[in-house]
Amino acid sequence: IKTKLSSKHVGLNLFFTHLFIYFALGSRYVSKTATKTVSEFEYDAPSMKTAVPGPKSQELLRQLGEIQNVGAIHFFCNYEESRGNYLVDVDGNRMLDVYTQISSIPIGYNHPALIKVMTNPNNVSAFVNRPALGILPPENFPEKLFESLLSIAPSGMNRVQTMACGSCSNENAFKSMFIWYRNKERGYASPSEQEVGTCMINQSPGCPDLSILSFMGAFHGRTMGCLATTHSKAIHKLDIPSFDWPIAPFPKLQYPLEEFVRENAQEEARCLEEVEDLIVKWRQKGKPVAGIVIEPIQAEGGDNHASPDFFIKLRNIARKHGCAFHVDEVQTGGGTTGKFWAHEHWGLDDPADIVSFSKKLLTGGYYHRDELQPDKPYRIFNTWMGDPSKNLFLSEVLNVIRRENLLEEVTRSGKALLQGLYSLQTQYPHILSRARGQGTFCAIDACSDATRDSIMLKARNKGLFMGSCGEKTIRFRPALVFKEYHVHQLLNILNDILAEHK
Amino acid sequence: IKTKLSSKHVGLNLFFTHLFIYFALGSRYVSKTATKTVSEFEYDAPSMKTAVPGPKSQELLRQLGEIQNVGAIHFFCNYEESRGNYLVDVDGNRMLDVYTQISSIPIGYNHPALIKVMTNPNNVSAFVNRPALGILPPENFPEKLFESLLSIAPSGMNRVQTMACGSCSNENAFKSMFIWYRNKERGYASPSEQEVGTCMINQSPGCPDLSILSFMGAFHGRTMGCLATTHSKAIHKLDIPSFDWPIAPFPKLQYPLEEFVRENAQEEARCLEEVEDLIVKWRQKGKPVAGIVIEPIQAEGGDNHASPDFFIKLRNIARKHGCAFHVDEVQTGGGTTGKFWAHEHWGLDDPADIVSFSKKLLTGGYYHRDELQPDKPYRIFNTWMGDPSKNLFLSEVLNVIRRENLLEEVTRSGKALLQGLYSLQTQYPHILSRARGQGTFCAIDACSDATRDSIMLKARNKGLFMGSCGEKTIRFRPALVFKEYHVHQLLNILNDILAEHK
Repeated sequence: IKTKLSSKHVGLNLFFTHLFIYFALGSRYVSKTATKTVSEFEYDAPSMKTAVPGPKSQELLRQLGEIQNVGAIHFFCNYEESRGNYLVDVDGNRMLDVYTQISSIPIGYNHPALIKVMTNPNNVSAFVNRPALGILPPENFPEKLFESLLSIAPSGMNRVQTMACGSCSNENAFKSMFIWYRNKERGYASPSEQEVGTCMINQSPGCPDLSILSFMGAFHGRTMGCLATTHSKAIHKLDIPSFDWPIAPFPKLQYPLEEFVRENAQEEARCLEEVEDLIVKWRQKGKPVAGIVIEPIQAEGGDNHASPDFFIKLRNIARKHGCAFHVDEVQTGGGTTGKFWAHEHWGLDDPADIVSFSKKLLTGGYYHRDELQPDKPYRIFNTWMGDPSKNLFLSEVLNVIRRENLLEEVTRSGKALLQGLYSLQTQYPHILSRARGQGTFCAIDACSDATRDSIMLKARNKGLFMGSCGEKTIRFRPALVFKEYHVHQLLNILNDILAEHK
Repeated sequence: IKTKLSSKHVGLNLFFTHLFIYFALGSRYVSKTATKTVSEFEYDAPSMKTAVPGPKSQELLRQLGEIQNVGAIHFFCNYEESRGNYLVDVDGNRMLDVYTQISSIPIGYNHPALIKVMTNPNNVSAFVNRPALGILPPENFPEKLFESLLSIAPSGMNRVQTMACGSCSNENAFKSMFIWYRNKERGYASPSEQEVGTCMINQSPGCPDLSILSFMGAFHGRTMGCLATTHSKAIHKLDIPSFDWPIAPFPKLQYPLEEFVRENAQEEARCLEEVEDLIVKWRQKGKPVAGIVIEPIQAEGGDNHASPDFFIKLRNIARKHGCAFHVDEVQTGGGTTGKFWAHEHWGLDDPADIVSFSKKLLTGGYYHRDELQPDKPYRIFNTWMGDPSKNLFLSEVLNVIRRENLLEEVTRSGKALLQGLYSLQTQYPHILSRARGQGTFCAIDACSDATRDSIMLKARNKGLFMGSCGEKTIRFRPALVFKEYHVHQLLNILNDILAEHK
């Protein structure tokens, strides 16, 4: 291992030397050769030195504990030494990472293409001079938006607003829906004096009693607007004041979906009926539903799927009742389902009015139809409105996805992963059930939360780092550079643990 | 000018060459010489080529208008060519910038010390591997917190939570206050089953009817929790549902403060009485005030000041009624008032329970007392919880502030600026009034909003870029590297415009 690491260091030095030629000549940096693919760059297997968290992590936990609540921290990382699908911790343990910073590392750790972005002198200014994008954008801002976010815009959407994180994206998407809804209601006339006056003191009609319909089990973020549509775990919501907004049941389907088509269709029909009832009820209550927000796959809530037919009908209900339809792709977006946007699996030309994103996109934000753009400046606004340095990284991530056909790779690896999970649940039916997934966005349930947690800890100590969600679910959220080779590593480790499990 | 710029380019190349030596040797990069101060690096005066926005900005506005509402955009910038206090636009106009990206550029554009952070290979990993800080922090995270945010912690606070932006900081500060308040109410017992159950459906008692008391004219952000405490302009709030939370009057003082001590004390007493009345009234309404949030100087609301005595008494009211006291230093923090935190001017040992920040600190976040730390993990949480690459820049900004004694500089420049504004309002009493300020955080009112806007546009065309706030106020928010030399440039341009003003 030592030889291997030092040869890597030499590689990095050569890389910087190469860059230097361009610095010294003062010319524009242009890559002459395609960067290595991540598989040429990364490690070939996990390698464990201590139990996790090891002694160094424990010491750092103690230090950070003086400053923050550290109860959620797994271990401390050596990001410098992490490569591709392998996360290295401060105790020298190297783990296959299929959780990827809560699904937010698109092409693995230290991808050479991203290091190039950082070390390209033409990009320096974007990092050191963070602009107030809404008033003083940089010269290349439109060009970079076209090159990055707009090159992957969902169907029917040519407009995009960047934001700093997922919660801000959803908060502002909600605000856009409220503004759009009230403009419709007042026939696009100017607001009344009463509206202008009352909004300053949080009162209706200026601050109207509008609502957003969300689903039980949903997760849309933790700021107070988002949190009113989040219903995944009590610990997220306890003690925080909220809005009286309608909450519909999300279908509880049986898996594999193709074996329970009739039962699942019935369950979805039940939920859709409830959605319409709630829209009517909340209108009668004087709190009309301005928008419906939904994840294509509920992630934090337990990896709950629904059929394209469910989403198509839901979209129609939204249209019928004059509600905006907001698809939250913060976790599902960015290629992990095998398409760039999970909602592309629905096969609709007109799937949404707003699509929000963050995580793998490296910047938060949302796409929207023309009508959802606020009529006036400063209605959707804040100091930074995103961070153009993240757009630079995103452009390069998209180049890598295209160059290395990573969506095909995800589809291939995802199939192997799901097949492997099916085999495991057949082999260990008393422990595992309900394997499900789309692309590498996969999950499986344990028989209890205690068993789930125990499997996860054992896996971590064997070099496999996974995530949890819902009550007793293990979720897999590898990077897009996760290959069949890695799937087999994952399955072997899981199999070893399950074989030993009492 | 041409010679000047090309000599700068040679300088940059030499700088990169210097860095190269360290890259090639593979050794840890250590700065051998102190970086140049910004005044050695920057331009010496504004230089205008076109009216603003010039033709290139107008073309880019048209392009971006296809993607976003561009009504708030002043012009497009060439950040690469901007230096120190001078912002260069895409048409080659160079302006003295005293608005600094809505007060968010601490030490000017392209400060050499920040470029070094970017080009130091030891820092590369922090930029390309953004962690989920709440679960997998990098090895140096505690060390960097001590070196950056904790080295400037307000009195009585050893704990800090980073966040991505100002709104997220305030949202999470509010959540911390709600959690703290409810824990007190239930005697630190576990929540009841009813609380756990009702919180999932947004209902009381799990989502309790608690409130945050804010002030008319306040600005605390635009996500829905923050927006319920923001009362600066109707356009920010119109059409967005809100909470029924109490809003107290903020003192409307007469300036200069030292000439109206008695009148101002009366006005402040009136406001404080109203605060206590509202706390009692909202408790009776069943919506107890969990926290009071206030800016040391209301910024967006029109640069409204209050005396240390007002804040001391307000802090006592908060304590007396068991409300947390949250000082929002998002705009006032970071040195611009001549102290690192504006609330340090109050002379209290115990000024606040929570202090939030963003903008000049480059990362969002908040400090808090021990008691305000949530009792359990995942209560204050999100995917990124800030961005460690911003902490690297902040460490370096703090080094520059210390090395160059920038707080003293701010005090000196601020005095010169305020004296200059006093002279101008004496000379042009029909146009200007109410000059006020602390450090370089200064403002002056025009006789009308139209006059204010006209002065600002004329100033921009003469190479002075200022901000507005309130109804008819010009606000000055220069970087900390703003020297007396720049003050005189500013005053000369303003004087020229006022002399011509009809």
